[in-house]
Amino acid sequence: MVDPANTVGIPVNPTPLLKDELDIVIPTIRNLDFLEMWRPFLQPYHLIIVQDGDPTKKIHVPEGYDYELYNRNDINRILGPKASCISFKDSACRCFGYMVSKKKYIFTIDDDCFVAKDPSGKAVNALEQHIKNLLCPSTPLFFNTLYDPYREGADFVRGYPFSLREGVTTAVSHGLWLNIPDYDAPTQLVKPKERNTRYVDAVMTIPKGTLFPMCGMNLAFDRDLIGPAMYFGLMGDGQPIGRYDDMWAGWCIKVICDHLGLGVKTGLPYIYHSKASNPFVNLKKEYKGIFWQEEIIPFFQNAKLSKEATTVQQCYIELSKMVKEKLSSLDPYFDKLADAMVTWIEAWDELNPPAAAAANSKA
Amino acid sequence: MVDPANTVGIPVNPTPLLKDELDIVIPTIRNLDFLEMWRPFLQPYHLIIVQDGDPTKKIHVPEGYDYELYNRNDINRILGPKASCISFKDSACRCFGYMVSKKKYIFTIDDDCFVAKDPSGKAVNALEQHIKNLLCPSTPLFFNTLYDPYREGADFVRGYPFSLREGVTTAVSHGLWLNIPDYDAPTQLVKPKERNTRYVDAVMTIPKGTLFPMCGMNLAFDRDLIGPAMYFGLMGDGQPIGRYDDMWAGWCIKVICDHLGLGVKTGLPYIYHSKASNPFVNLKKEYKGIFWQEEIIPFFQNAKLSKEATTVQQCYIELSKMVKEKLSSLDPYFDKLADAMVTWIEAWDELNPPAAAAANSKA
Repeated sequence: MVDPANTVGIPVNPTPLLKDELDIVIPTIRNLDFLEMWRPFLQPYHLIIVQDGDPTKKIHVPEGYDYELYNRNDINRILGPKASCISFKDSACRCFGYMVSKKKYIFTIDDDCFVAKDPSGKAVNALEQHIKNLLCPSTPLFFNTLYDPYREGADFVRGYPFSLREGVTTAVSHGLWLNIPDYDAPTQLVKPKERNTRYVDAVMTIPKGTLFPMCGMNLAFDRDLIGPAMYFGLMGDGQPIGRYDDMWAGWCIKVICDHLGLGVKTGLPYIYHSKASNPFVNLKKEYKGIFWQEEIIPFFQNAKLSKEATTVQQCYIELSKMVKEKLSSLDPYFDKLADAMVTWIEAWDELNPPAAAAANSKA
Repeated sequence: MVDPANTVGIPVNPTPLLKDELDIVIPTIRNLDFLEMWRPFLQPYHLIIVQDGDPTKKIHVPEGYDYELYNRNDINRILGPKASCISFKDSACRCFGYMVSKKKYIFTIDDDCFVAKDPSGKAVNALEQHIKNLLCPSTPLFFNTLYDPYREGADFVRGYPFSLREGVTTAVSHGLWLNIPDYDAPTQLVKPKERNTRYVDAVMTIPKGTLFPMCGMNLAFDRDLIGPAMYFGLMGDGQPIGRYDDMWAGWCIKVICDHLGLGVKTGLPYIYHSKASNPFVNLKKEYKGIFWQEEIIPFFQNAKLSKEATTVQQCYIELSKMVKEKLSSLDPYFDKLADAMVTWIEAWDELNPPAAAAANSKA
């Protein structure tokens, strides 16, 4: 059996996994000094930096990194009127990077995330673990009590149907955070000193039919399989809501992965999240989302895509229609968001013409 | 917030949790010397020992333990013709202990399970962790990426609906095994030397709608909430199948817990499982189950109980009818099993008259 999680016996500087098939997408408003710490793990890869806020500001990228950088002017120039679907003054702008990438895989990370250590004190190569998660199957159709059955020293337990042991293709790998946990503003306010110190040595498949809160801080996915659904919505400047960009994408991708028979994993790898954001600012961004999610989540839990929807784009367009129909009564914002979902798909297809996408997925 | 998983600060010999509300059920064919190692943790509790096989054999129980012991003659005497629902020459006989208990909680453990150590080398008090799992809510309706949100140092992450943060009452706590993992015969044969050494420091709720392979080796449950569904089926002597007793119970209890809005957890605590059973013998017991489970699991995945089924007994009787209707075509065994499910409920209600059960649950 292939051992996708084995880190023992891997030489310190092997040829980096998927070097020419993966882009790292980083949204930022500041200098990317955090990349210094990631150099041993990330320098071999190509970066796509999406500069948020003032386009005249110069972003410093540590030397030796290969990157392309897009600011708001670039986004407007490349997408024209369709640039309206890309958020401004919110890390949701990162999804522009997913769209302009020509690679099969994306790893996205926030610029306040540092290298975590495992309980033995060893630096965690987060990207390597994400790649292992993505390259090895998921098991969404039945729960395995010993966690990832494909991992060294583990397997499917007694009672696991043999017909399901090949698993399904993995589309998304959701990593976690040590130190500052990803809490909402009310929880931040109530527990300002809470730090996550528990290293749970597991990778899990999120079962089919179960939604989860997807955080965009430490996330990898197969762009060919699920990219067009990784839209981070309309957030920040001019919008009534922020900090729900990744949540929105998480609900959408999970419904679509379930429909298309793709897997979503969560657990390892951890990153070290250094800086708690301001809970008062966060509360202002979040408060409508905290209210709305009570209706949005049941909406997604009940969303059923049609048999005719066989591509991610078709699924996403169907979902946008349901959003317009069912969520617009909650707030006119969802009418606008549903339109932006369509614009996003149009822009995606423009930048990723089907022929090129097919050739890419064969490569 | 109550911290149900905190072990820091608990004195070494506190008053044992739920001492008068919990029975430990042990099925055995041999002397119970394994209880010596468990003495610091289990001696305060009452044991119900279900002796399998030859009733004339004398089972030795270490001194100082308070216990009652039932052999096959006792079972026949107590249940009369209804004793036919209790398996013989199979650890499935343990469910007789669930039936004769008068306590609210059950912990059941195999006699080849020893005290595990956590990564710091500390002995794991498995029962204490099970009790914490049972006394603290479950979260089956939405996935929390930081695992048990009620645990010290953890909480619900951003994007978790506030309306679901009170969780639901927990009915079942499924613990895991270090050393010998719970594999089926084919996996045992293929990986005879595999040992589980990975201590995953997590307790998870199994999401609503997701089935799991429940192992009876290290299991606790709330007898008042789910006891009548914890039937371990017809296995062993005179039956075409063995080693599917706990699996059968696991499928049934999960469908019923989902229907009644109760929670099922898996993860901590670990026990140390000492002895691999003979894979050749296991294969003989299991082979029909390995084939049948490919149809049984979809059956349970699609089983929908009616709104009228509001008690565990009602749910279980409905399930027995579905088994008869949908699985009898697979093998006449399921016709017999469906009848035994009804007999089990009749026997349960005879030994646990509704009035007494109600008084017990108030106590």
